Amino acid sequence: MSNSTLPRPLKGIIPPLVTPLLDSDTLDKEGFVRLIEHVIAGGVHGLFILGTTGEAQSLSYRLRHEVIEETCRIAAGRLPVLVGITDTSIVESVNLAKKAAECGAAAVVSAPPYYYATAQPELTDFYKHLTDQLPLPLFLYNMPVHTKVSFSPATIRTLAQNPKIVGFKDSSGSGSYFQAVCQEMRDMPEFSLLVGPEEMTAESVLLGAHGGVNGGANMFPSLYVALYNAAEAGDLEKVKELQQKVLSISRAVYNVGQYGSSYLKGVKCVLGLLGICSDILAEPFQHFLPREREIVRNAVEALNLGVTLKG
Amino acid sequence: MSNSTLPRPLKGIIPPLVTPLLDSDTLDKEGFVRLIEHVIAGGVHGLFILGTTGEAQSLSYRLRHEVIEETCRIAAGRLPVLVGITDTSIVESVNLAKKAAECGAAAVVSAPPYYYATAQPELTDFYKHLTDQLPLPLFLYNMPVHTKVSFSPATIRTLAQNPKIVGFKDSSGSGSYFQAVCQEMRDMPEFSLLVGPEEMTAESVLLGAHGGVNGGANMFPSLYVALYNAAEAGDLEKVKELQQKVLSISRAVYNVGQYGSSYLKGVKCVLGLLGICSDILAEPFQHFLPREREIVRNAVEALNLGVTLKG
Amino acid sequence: MSNSTLPRPLKGIIPPLVTPLLDSDTLDKEGFVRLIEHVIAGGVHGLFILGTTGEAQSLSYRLRHEVIEETCRIAAGRLPVLVGITDTSIVESVNLAKKAAECGAAAVVSAPPYYYATAQPELTDFYKHLTDQLPLPLFLYNMPVHTKVSFSPATIRTLAQNPKIVGFKDSSGSGSYFQAVCQEMRDMPEFSLLVGPEEMTAESVLLGAHGGVNGGANMFPSLYVALYNAAEAGDLEKVKELQQKVLSISRAVYNVGQYGSSYLKGVKCVLGLLGICSDILAEPFQHFLPREREIVRNAVEALNLGVTLKG
Amino acid sequence: MSNSTLPRPLKGIIPPLVTPLLDSDTLDKEGFVRLIEHVIAGGVHGLFILGTTGEAQSLSYRLRHEVIEETCRIAAGRLPVLVGITDTSIVESVNLAKKAAECGAAAVVSAPPYYYATAQPELTDFYKHLTDQLPLPLFLYNMPVHTKVSFSPATIRTLAQNPKIVGFKDSSGSGSYFQAVCQEMRDMPEFSLLVGPEEMTAESVLLGAHGGVNGGANMFPSLYVALYNAAEAGDLEKVKELQQKVLSISRAVYNVGQYGSSYLKGVKCVLGLLGICSDILAEPFQHFLPREREIVRNAVEALNLGVTLKG
Repeated sequence: MSNSTLPRPLKGIIPPLVTPLLDSDTLDKEGFVRLIEHVIAGGVHGLFILGTTGEAQSLSYRLRHEVIEETCRIAAGRLPVLVGITDTSIVESVNLAKKAAECGAAAVVSAPPYYYATAQPELTDFYKHLTDQLPLPLFLYNMPVHTKVSFSPATIRTLAQNPKIVGFKDSSGSGSYFQAVCQEMRDMPEFSLLVGPEEMTAESVLLGAHGGVNGGANMFPSLYVALYNAAEAGDLEKVKELQQKVLSISRAVYNVGQYGSSYLKGVKCVLGLLGICSDILAEPFQHFLPREREIVRNAVEALNLGVTLKG
Repeated sequence: MSNSTLPRPLKGIIPPLVTPLLDSDTLDKEGFVRLIEHVIAGGVHGLFILGTTGEAQSLSYRLRHEVIEETCRIAAGRLPVLVGITDTSIVESVNLAKKAAECGAAAVVSAPPYYYATAQPELTDFYKHLTDQLPLPLFLYNMPVHTKVSFSPATIRTLAQNPKIVGFKDSSGSGSYFQAVCQEMRDMPEFSLLVGPEEMTAESVLLGAHGGVNGGANMFPSLYVALYNAAEAGDLEKVKELQQKVLSISRAVYNVGQYGSSYLKGVKCVLGLLGICSDILAEPFQHFLPREREIVRNAVEALNLGVTLKG
Repeated sequence: MSNSTLPRPLKGIIPPLVTPLLDSDTLDKEGFVRLIEHVIAGGVHGLFILGTTGEAQSLSYRLRHEVIEETCRIAAGRLPVLVGITDTSIVESVNLAKKAAECGAAAVVSAPPYYYATAQPELTDFYKHLTDQLPLPLFLYNMPVHTKVSFSPATIRTLAQNPKIVGFKDSSGSGSYFQAVCQEMRDMPEFSLLVGPEEMTAESVLLGAHGGVNGGANMFPSLYVALYNAAEAGDLEKVKELQQKVLSISRAVYNVGQYGSSYLKGVKCVLGLLGICSDILAEPFQHFLPREREIVRNAVEALNLGVTLKG
Repeated sequence: MSNSTLPRPLKGIIPPLVTPLLDSDTLDKEGFVRLIEHVIAGGVHGLFILGTTGEAQSLSYRLRHEVIEETCRIAAGRLPVLVGITDTSIVESVNLAKKAAECGAAAVVSAPPYYYATAQPELTDFYKHLTDQLPLPLFLYNMPVHTKVSFSPATIRTLAQNPKIVGFKDSSGSGSYFQAVCQEMRDMPEFSLLVGPEEMTAESVLLGAHGGVNGGANMFPSLYVALYNAAEAGDLEKVKELQQKVLSISRAVYNVGQYGSSYLKGVKCVLGLLGICSDILAEPFQHFLPREREIVRNAVEALNLGVTLKG
């Protein structure tokens, strides 16, 4: 399997791929091929699997290993593959990382253990122990709503002294926090600074961030790539035009239904409507009911994105 | 392997066993034998493994399976073994439950998936799907600080209509919530109502709860059993006397150091000082430093509990 | 105005009185007289005004002063009046306390300032500065859901060295926390330890607490007094019988509607149905709609409490 | 007193003024004059008094009224004065608004009531009742960490149909949320969209926000004005250069000490070091100790901002 190399810093749009499922423990293999080809055709700069959008925590380890194998096989070295190894057990995280290295992934990504809450010194110790056992470079992943802890800028700086730790992905949504992290890391230009929420990727890139790990890029990859390119080039007019499209998609797709899982359901629903892959979710979540699916369909059609949705 | 039977309702003190470790992925087998014999000698009414106190989420699946095997082997049908199968992946929960059934455990225990937050209707669906695949009866486990959701009394009542769901363990610490659950379940006297925090077990049993899943019973099982017995018998004078001892242990052992992990570190520290098992914790936590261990030792010695601590 | 004396420790049921309103800034004076006579006839041991149940924070200062005057006038020394002075401004807290002293109240009650979150050392400083200016003894009031901070047991102990601080009311609902506080304060038997939630008052009193500040005692004071008396006397059978009634009221009255304000709306709704006072709430809340009022009426009637509800 | 007019939309830097104090209830009048002249000289576009940075909740009503009077007197119509009327009592909010109108303020600003948590429909009702009684236009103020509720974009849109509601200030710090609000309000270009945190003001203005309510502008108003102007003009190079200065100030000044009040203490400390006004805080907070003040002094001096700090 051909290895992909990891640019330093990694830049651009790295979609956090959904995991297409036929049921809770069966990969929709054909859908997964279509999805990966779809985002590569859209010009994305890397693939991130087994993240929050990938429902990693809801999947069995067997299936997580299969997702790693399949992704690396399909990507075939065309772009770097980043593998989420976030777990509550350091042993399982290392197992996932070994699999990732074996399959030719470029790097791994780890949010803090998420059952117990951890304090900053515990985070520092944990990542020391983890990286000691990792065969691949690591991106830190900040996801406080799920992990109950946020990396302080000072903790990130301390951890970044470790040459195996090469970047940081922030899904906190906080603009002031992310700017504080950028300031803290200003003198390490090879350290990747990526944001999760697509709604704030453009503004972050305008001020120096390296890219976005945007869930919407599963659905409409070329749009998010174009927005990234405009921001990277400092083309403010283009940024404003594309930003409005991105925001209109978030508004249409991520807020149907009343629970916290609306984002996950929405992305998979649109991928189903686009004919790319199944919209099935792993427990504890369920895909949208027909009524909700119609709401999403109508909202997406009203956006005139030039895509055809299935009947 | 001889099966233990499950009383309905299950009553008494069911210690949530710590997992004695030689390192993050190696069971302290001799310590584990000593621990189980220690609590059985103390008169406990069941064993609960792979709970929060058991650091289940920090352990590899290989090790969790080993813990199930060893516990059932050592207990040898002398008392019911309850196995924690809490996971973010329903597939892994079912795998753990199958192992538990195979080894002769009496029941399984499951808190909600804990990465994403779930809503009440999602909880109901999840437990429907889970119990459909379970070979053993299930206790619901309420642990909102870790799982980001609390079972509403109405959800518990709905779920309890399922004959496979036989009890509820509440680790919320909320007296008013637990009483509301008791009221909701008043007409189902075979449904076990157990509380986690030992500080409120006696008062809950006085008003009708069936027992406690008390971490302190790892260290001093006969004390917690005596307190349960006094409460069960309505002997208020005895309850008050023993309650004070229990509270003095909590105060001495669980509040050393400044992080949320003080409870786990404290219990394992005392077990180490008692010569029962290793005090090593799995990542992301570390055992107490010598200085903290001395604080615990001195505090426990000052309680005059009639135990000898190691040098 | 005749002063009421303050027993040390204060014991029994001290209802946190609702503030009957004709509109957001007008006291329902006749209703207030009926309410106070109703709870005194029910045997309560004190009155607590301007607490969370009294909607103090929603009332103008003019109205808060009027509530103090009216309560002391109506109570006329028959039982101790405790006045909530919780505020974000220490100056306004002291102003309320001066009014309370002038009108003959027995003590004041203060939760921490609740706009900014405070840390434990800031709590200690704040109460030092506050008590220096207080003309009356003070009860600490723990209400973490509203104030964003919980008094640590050690902070309570430190503060209780101040002779002006005579008691602690805990509305956290946490049984394990309240027991930890009781343990910390064990050697100061004159320091009052009171619990807020009526669902856990009985069990707390069984283990040594001094009483309850129970919202339900606005509606059915003699029931909560009887439950307190049974617990104080150690009469477990009576406790269990009355506890069930108390829980059935909570279940019927406090959970109608979907917002956090259901408790406040429920208590005032029943007081309206009992013909005691108006059910109007101050902004930001509104009283129940007719449909919700019917739900409450039917639920209360089904309890067979022997009361007559208005048409 | 000459009235200032309110531009629609209000644009630019509107510093949330600190309230200079001689003690908890005494305004540092001379310091307040110097502060207001300092920020006006720095080119700010409005003044916002009695916000979170102004410690409004910690001040007595008498003092809040004095702050309104003094500000309007000193500003003398040179720029619009916005008055914070955030309160838990709607009656007191209206009283403050009447005072503001009487003194010639241009608008009022109100975050939701902050003792009880409110739900979205309750927010809508509350602001309806509030605006009905207001003599001045209103800015909504989102401050979820203090008020326990965040305006949903849909609630903002609903409220903005009310002609008295003319803008929104977001202090959530969330970039993705603020962008969602901008999208929701896209077709109402006269509705002001302002951000609180100075670290994310530039990026927000680049994408269309109207300005910032930046605490740092108390200390170094011309810097924040220059950053706003660069962002407004789309001068990315200038933005990046000034953004770094702004971030270095935040890092130096707002993170000394260990509590949530570090920001407030830091701003007042620097104002003291600059010789502008007293650094005293109202309870529940205290100004920095000499040791902490030296840390701030050294950190600010290291920034080479060209200012002279007092000995």
